[in-house]
Amino acid sequence: MRGGLCDGIDLIEVRNGALSFRVLPTRGMQILDAEYAGLRVGWDAPVRGPVHPKFINIIERGGLGWLQGFSETLVRCGLASNGPPVEDVMIDNQGNESREQLTLHGRIANIPAHQVAIEVIAEPEPAICVSGVVDESMLFGTQLRLESRISTVLGSSRIQVNDEIVNLKTAPSELELLYHCNFSGPFLEAGAQILAPIADITPRNETAQQGIDSFSECAGPTPGFVEQVFFLHLNADATGRSLAMLQNAAADKAIVVRADTAQLPCFTVWKNTAAEEAGYVLGLEPGTDYPNPRPFERHKGRLVTLGPKESYHAQVTLDIRDNAAAVAEVQAEIDTIQAGRQAVVNRERHPDLCG
Amino acid sequence: MRGGLCDGIDLIEVRNGALSFRVLPTRGMQILDAEYAGLRVGWDAPVRGPVHPKFINIIERGGLGWLQGFSETLVRCGLASNGPPVEDVMIDNQGNESREQLTLHGRIANIPAHQVAIEVIAEPEPAICVSGVVDESMLFGTQLRLESRISTVLGSSRIQVNDEIVNLKTAPSELELLYHCNFSGPFLEAGAQILAPIADITPRNETAQQGIDSFSECAGPTPGFVEQVFFLHLNADATGRSLAMLQNAAADKAIVVRADTAQLPCFTVWKNTAAEEAGYVLGLEPGTDYPNPRPFERHKGRLVTLGPKESYHAQVTLDIRDNAAAVAEVQAEIDTIQAGRQAVVNRERHPDLCG
Amino acid sequence: MRGGLCDGIDLIEVRNGALSFRVLPTRGMQILDAEYAGLRVGWDAPVRGPVHPKFINIIERGGLGWLQGFSETLVRCGLASNGPPVEDVMIDNQGNESREQLTLHGRIANIPAHQVAIEVIAEPEPAICVSGVVDESMLFGTQLRLESRISTVLGSSRIQVNDEIVNLKTAPSELELLYHCNFSGPFLEAGAQILAPIADITPRNETAQQGIDSFSECAGPTPGFVEQVFFLHLNADATGRSLAMLQNAAADKAIVVRADTAQLPCFTVWKNTAAEEAGYVLGLEPGTDYPNPRPFERHKGRLVTLGPKESYHAQVTLDIRDNAAAVAEVQAEIDTIQAGRQAVVNRERHPDLCG
Repeated sequence: MRGGLCDGIDLIEVRNGALSFRVLPTRGMQILDAEYAGLRVGWDAPVRGPVHPKFINIIERGGLGWLQGFSETLVRCGLASNGPPVEDVMIDNQGNESREQLTLHGRIANIPAHQVAIEVIAEPEPAICVSGVVDESMLFGTQLRLESRISTVLGSSRIQVNDEIVNLKTAPSELELLYHCNFSGPFLEAGAQILAPIADITPRNETAQQGIDSFSECAGPTPGFVEQVFFLHLNADATGRSLAMLQNAAADKAIVVRADTAQLPCFTVWKNTAAEEAGYVLGLEPGTDYPNPRPFERHKGRLVTLGPKESYHAQVTLDIRDNAAAVAEVQAEIDTIQAGRQAVVNRERHPDLCG
Repeated sequence: MRGGLCDGIDLIEVRNGALSFRVLPTRGMQILDAEYAGLRVGWDAPVRGPVHPKFINIIERGGLGWLQGFSETLVRCGLASNGPPVEDVMIDNQGNESREQLTLHGRIANIPAHQVAIEVIAEPEPAICVSGVVDESMLFGTQLRLESRISTVLGSSRIQVNDEIVNLKTAPSELELLYHCNFSGPFLEAGAQILAPIADITPRNETAQQGIDSFSECAGPTPGFVEQVFFLHLNADATGRSLAMLQNAAADKAIVVRADTAQLPCFTVWKNTAAEEAGYVLGLEPGTDYPNPRPFERHKGRLVTLGPKESYHAQVTLDIRDNAAAVAEVQAEIDTIQAGRQAVVNRERHPDLCG
Repeated sequence: MRGGLCDGIDLIEVRNGALSFRVLPTRGMQILDAEYAGLRVGWDAPVRGPVHPKFINIIERGGLGWLQGFSETLVRCGLASNGPPVEDVMIDNQGNESREQLTLHGRIANIPAHQVAIEVIAEPEPAICVSGVVDESMLFGTQLRLESRISTVLGSSRIQVNDEIVNLKTAPSELELLYHCNFSGPFLEAGAQILAPIADITPRNETAQQGIDSFSECAGPTPGFVEQVFFLHLNADATGRSLAMLQNAAADKAIVVRADTAQLPCFTVWKNTAAEEAGYVLGLEPGTDYPNPRPFERHKGRLVTLGPKESYHAQVTLDIRDNAAAVAEVQAEIDTIQAGRQAVVNRERHPDLCG
């Protein structure tokens, strides 16, 4: 891409015959957006993106610089940390305590990929796969490698992200990984619904407490709306698979996020139904942890620790539905998993979940 | 441009038949320099520029990183803030107080433009116009857009900058905008004069206090000279237009900065007649405010507040004079505006002006 | 170079018929690596480099961001400072004290060169020379210019770095310059030896104190090994020239670092024989000073001060030996300089050397 904040970005557009999507190797193999049957998957961020990492300074504005580049539909938050800017205490290469100032949602979104490849796969089904390697590493620091494979079966309405995160060190490493999947129209609108097989749900902030009763309902663009964040556990099928769906008001269009609760046990919902200009958007975010300060997540035992050379696999699928029957199919799938169980609704912030 | 700190910069050179100037879309539509009748408009900054924003870290050196790229003849300071690095307290998207570390002269100078275009205009006079859009925006942050049009009438000795700053948010936004216009030889030299229809003038710093009596006189390059900064209000004509001129010792060459006192009521003069190597330069700087810490300017009521979708227009003209008669014409223009009024000279820093 | 963290880097490969090496104008004229007689000079840094400066934020991680790009075999640390991140107190352009947050090993490694040229030289010997200019300068700040000439005589096994550092200011400037020369296999291995005409040697850290007796011995890759740093003074020949050598276990391969003790009186050895994945490497580092906090080095009188327009010359030579006789020749050279003198071994950290 040429000019403005996009200058120098490499963009890979994949078309499977029915679905198209765009991958950004320059921004850590994020998915910019997708289109299926005339439905656009994505959102209109206040920043006109995609933004090349060379224009991003993640430590600006007290560690909120990440927001200057936040515009994609699938953004990984991690790998060493996600969540808000906070000071953490680490052990350095000399064995001493060292203080580190973590920045919002970590570094992986702003590191370019190498070994980028596009393959056509014949088995088990004909598919196209874009792969790339993103290294979050430095001497005496983290050495986490993301090997990402993003694939789509020809003619399907699905994008499958298969990530392998490898600890290249000979010492253990902590990992935090969250898939910040962001959607707006035509799925998000007044009357749109969030459906999922919810085991329990907890508001993270005060506005979320106020909005807990209408959690599943989405408002239209609302100037002045203050974001609401909810922390969920999802029920899963026998193999651990679960899902969450955002369906439009007429229930004839939906976007589904599928993940494995063993890999990504923590599910965050970000309601930001503010004005269009302020980034009207809903986030469905499976993660290894909740996007709290890392010291809090460590204390609560939600950090993944990878041993030397150990790797972690995570799979996330985006699944687009363009008619009422296809949406109803997912509703039935959710009902089957839920099996009549009642979601536990915490009406207040919970000390185990909210840091 | 290729190589060194310039690598990757787009540069647009405009020639109107008599005057040429160079615009930098990659650096927020700044004007690098100009030439008319063999007279170079610009200065020799200690940094060999122009410098691509990818090599600038505005928060380096305690928020002074902006200086690493400061080398143009017309540089905008803004849009959310100008002035020195300072902590400011803002209200965040959750309605809470949040502390923000402002950096020297803000972000707009280091953001690349998009929608860059060159037009030839027939009416009212044949002119060439370079335009571009620069977005200073991020989620939960400022969303100010600069739409800049820089034009020159064919055969003229003038460059006109027409800027529209739009608040894209649905909430009000503060704006600070200052045009840092920087000139050196052949205009600046020992015996060069600063002329303007001054209503009042106030020294900002101690060295300026010492230099207040010789304000209008310029020294030659003086190793060890410490910058002097003066805050002025200018008188204007009936339509609000005013001007300031830097004329050479022989009064046969001059550069004139024209602005509207309703749009840009605060005028700052920066005398930095240090050694050539240290950036021998004079700044004539019309602004919406004085480059003081933003909390101080807010307290003094000098911040512009733009309502939702509201925009602010500012026009600045650079006007080059290459002979004694043309210089005398501007002197007469200044005298006409001044109409015999005496400038109020504050000999000490003033609590309303100096933060 | 294209893609990943290397994207946009210019790389110059020089081949003299026997020896090849690669220079990085984009990274301040560092030497990435070299090859002679099948022997690779360089190391495998945890970061997959070379890394373009646009992806480096030197103030990240408390001023350790430099490590994100540290992957070359010859890296200059300087020019205004080297050593760890630390706050220093400087006098600003107004004559006032100002606090500056120095970052690890300074800025020069992440500034691109301009005026890059390649020459073939006939006299005194036929040679190839790559030259470039790197400016570490900004308004009201440092204005140090590095003019680097990196040359090799045709058919030789040597690379000679000739650097001129010029203070462009009309005021004096401090200078710190250290050549971080980093080597791994085939020179570094279990049983490899460090040889030099040592006048005195002092451990910098606790692990170095523990390792002082086996200073000259190198271990194989050792997971969990904590770096050891030693500060040395070297004896020199009558003209001031000295050297240090890393030879392999069989003493039939060696890399020699030659420098002038008048130009670069402080010699640092960095043993980091950690796991291969953690950057198994040995550093031989001639410098104007030791890489301590700058205020400490100033206090100890080890900072170079350059007067207005004054320049400083430093020459460093890398010399590769590919057989036992050639290695023995250097051993003899070291013995001749040492002339039977015993090295003074400080077994504890020394208050004059360790800040």
